[in-house]
Amino acid sequence: MVNSAKNLAILGSTGSIGRQTLQVVRNLAGCFRVVGLAAGQNTELLFQQIDEFKPKYIYYQNKETSQLTTQNLVPRPFLDRGSQFLSMEEIAAHPEVDIVVIATSGKAGLSATLTAVKAGKKVAIANKEPLVMAGEIITREAKESGAQLLPIDSEHSAIWQCLNGESQPPKRILLTASGGPFRGFSPQQLAQVTPQQALQHPSWQMGKKVTIDSATLMNKGLEIIEAHWLFGVPLEQIEVIIHPRSIIHSMVEFNDGSFKAQMSYPDMRLPIQYALTYPERVPNPELPKLDWSKIKELTFEPPDFKKFPCLELAIKAAKMDGTSPTALCAADELVVDLFLKGAIKFTDIARLIEQVLQQHQTISNPTLDDIINIDNWSREMVTKIFYQDYKC
Amino acid sequence: MVNSAKNLAILGSTGSIGRQTLQVVRNLAGCFRVVGLAAGQNTELLFQQIDEFKPKYIYYQNKETSQLTTQNLVPRPFLDRGSQFLSMEEIAAHPEVDIVVIATSGKAGLSATLTAVKAGKKVAIANKEPLVMAGEIITREAKESGAQLLPIDSEHSAIWQCLNGESQPPKRILLTASGGPFRGFSPQQLAQVTPQQALQHPSWQMGKKVTIDSATLMNKGLEIIEAHWLFGVPLEQIEVIIHPRSIIHSMVEFNDGSFKAQMSYPDMRLPIQYALTYPERVPNPELPKLDWSKIKELTFEPPDFKKFPCLELAIKAAKMDGTSPTALCAADELVVDLFLKGAIKFTDIARLIEQVLQQHQTISNPTLDDIINIDNWSREMVTKIFYQDYKC
Repeated sequence: MVNSAKNLAILGSTGSIGRQTLQVVRNLAGCFRVVGLAAGQNTELLFQQIDEFKPKYIYYQNKETSQLTTQNLVPRPFLDRGSQFLSMEEIAAHPEVDIVVIATSGKAGLSATLTAVKAGKKVAIANKEPLVMAGEIITREAKESGAQLLPIDSEHSAIWQCLNGESQPPKRILLTASGGPFRGFSPQQLAQVTPQQALQHPSWQMGKKVTIDSATLMNKGLEIIEAHWLFGVPLEQIEVIIHPRSIIHSMVEFNDGSFKAQMSYPDMRLPIQYALTYPERVPNPELPKLDWSKIKELTFEPPDFKKFPCLELAIKAAKMDGTSPTALCAADELVVDLFLKGAIKFTDIARLIEQVLQQHQTISNPTLDDIINIDNWSREMVTKIFYQDYKC
Repeated sequence: MVNSAKNLAILGSTGSIGRQTLQVVRNLAGCFRVVGLAAGQNTELLFQQIDEFKPKYIYYQNKETSQLTTQNLVPRPFLDRGSQFLSMEEIAAHPEVDIVVIATSGKAGLSATLTAVKAGKKVAIANKEPLVMAGEIITREAKESGAQLLPIDSEHSAIWQCLNGESQPPKRILLTASGGPFRGFSPQQLAQVTPQQALQHPSWQMGKKVTIDSATLMNKGLEIIEAHWLFGVPLEQIEVIIHPRSIIHSMVEFNDGSFKAQMSYPDMRLPIQYALTYPERVPNPELPKLDWSKIKELTFEPPDFKKFPCLELAIKAAKMDGTSPTALCAADELVVDLFLKGAIKFTDIARLIEQVLQQHQTISNPTLDDIINIDNWSREMVTKIFYQDYKC
């Protein structure tokens, strides 16, 4: 498919998307060279990945290394493997890197995403929070540098595929949502949901944060904002439709009333691979395929905004614009963590985020500093409200 | 949308597709200029169309005019209207014409299609029989002349839209079929079907011939052959799936396992308009739009080859290639006519065509003369078998 292998840097290589990206690299042998890997705490897996893919540049973050950028301060196991230790930003902007895969979680990828964009890279984005928090800045910088933003989220990959070859912008985007594991639950049932239950997504294998966000529909709200920035479509032209089987990954309506939908077996490796091989497509025998003889029906229903208030909170924050999506995003990240730790109920997730948003004074046209400040403020607010209202 | 109006010639302007094409011309005022109209027997409607659209060139066929090509032999009503009388072929190749819409029925459009293709026109094809009969010749000539074949059939328009912007050929085409009005009928019920019943298509408003072909699934078989020629996809990679609501108009699978589907409210004016405005899309408030709040489900099932043997006959003829699709097409045209006249039963349609195909000796790489000869032979065979087996 390609004349020469493309050089990849994968930021967040030990997470769900990072691991699946490396599976695609394995499956499409010869298409890609892994030159950079960055991970968080899971050093055991990172060492395995370094041994297998032999990246020239690596980063990992823990208490000892979080401040390190020079070779002589790097722990022995890295030195022994011959990789050079760089910061995430240095890897993201490195001249040898063609495509930067942002597979980090939450706000962790923000700075490296911006760096990769400013360096004019192809930036394959699985981590939606940077775009939600700083969409205006990231898309403006991409325009200036010529960086290409390649969506990895299955919905955004679907939209991107549907827009391929079209000369006009979409009239409307229909983001499909599985509805999560609690579609049809009563409010009473929702209040009793455990983290274990919420981590059982009916159709997708994903990281913990995004799996909980899927269960609350916050994920779909963040995706609206992501789609708004990626495709330049006004928020009012982006709608959500519940499609439990996750076969149609999203739809686009054009100005003549024609719709296009992209479909596949729900497996993140396909959108990952599409972003990496674009504009080509490449066969991958490892990917499970749709079997239409077994698909008797595809069903659709409207989302239940009352039972899943996070979706409306996200739309509200998106419409307020400025730093509101940042406040939403930061609060969500911390609140989901509190839920996963068993500190709050499933139905408290929306309640806590709503309280933060109510206290937030949005700053229009924010700078990156504004965004970082509001991110910190929002996290502090969550902690404050949590200790006031929930711990006593 | 366009800098200047495009010049249209519509061959078959009084038929279902012709009338809908003129509706699109009306709806998109200023986009198109009708420079040529050709029709069959319905002179009353043709006169109305001439009065409204004032085409420079016209043709109609009846006993008096079928041999006419010169002005002085033209009946008074045409002369009074100031249009010049030309043959269908002269209109199809006229230098003033940008797009030729082939909206004829059965084999009537074959010669004019070839003429338009040889003249390097944009040829918008609603009449599938010319491509079924002479697909190899038409696509070869189009390659040589630079003519563009623009599909109007809703399924082929869907495939075309899905392939837009893709750099690789499709791995597989899934042609959707409504299944017609007799899906689920027993063999006994099928034998009793009347022309009136067969003319009630559940989702599409179409001409008589194609409506009966839809009821027998012969239409879907012809569409397989049409798709094969239009998109250069091997027959084995084209499958049929029954989708009764006719919302998904067809699907394409790519080599990475990703599918694209095109959807819309079933209304022929959309694919007509897409062919005429391509590569642009244009809003048309007159077109009914899909309302996803009302679409609870889309269903799929495999076609029943046993109860609808015409589908298998078409696939068989397609695989035999050469003049076999011509023999099939010609037999079908006459047999459908016999059914519409009440001379044979619905279930006799496939039986008669099968008998013709059994007698047919296929000629490989046929010339146009071979095709025309086999077309005549096949029609004669139908008549012969009919008088032998059915009239006595």
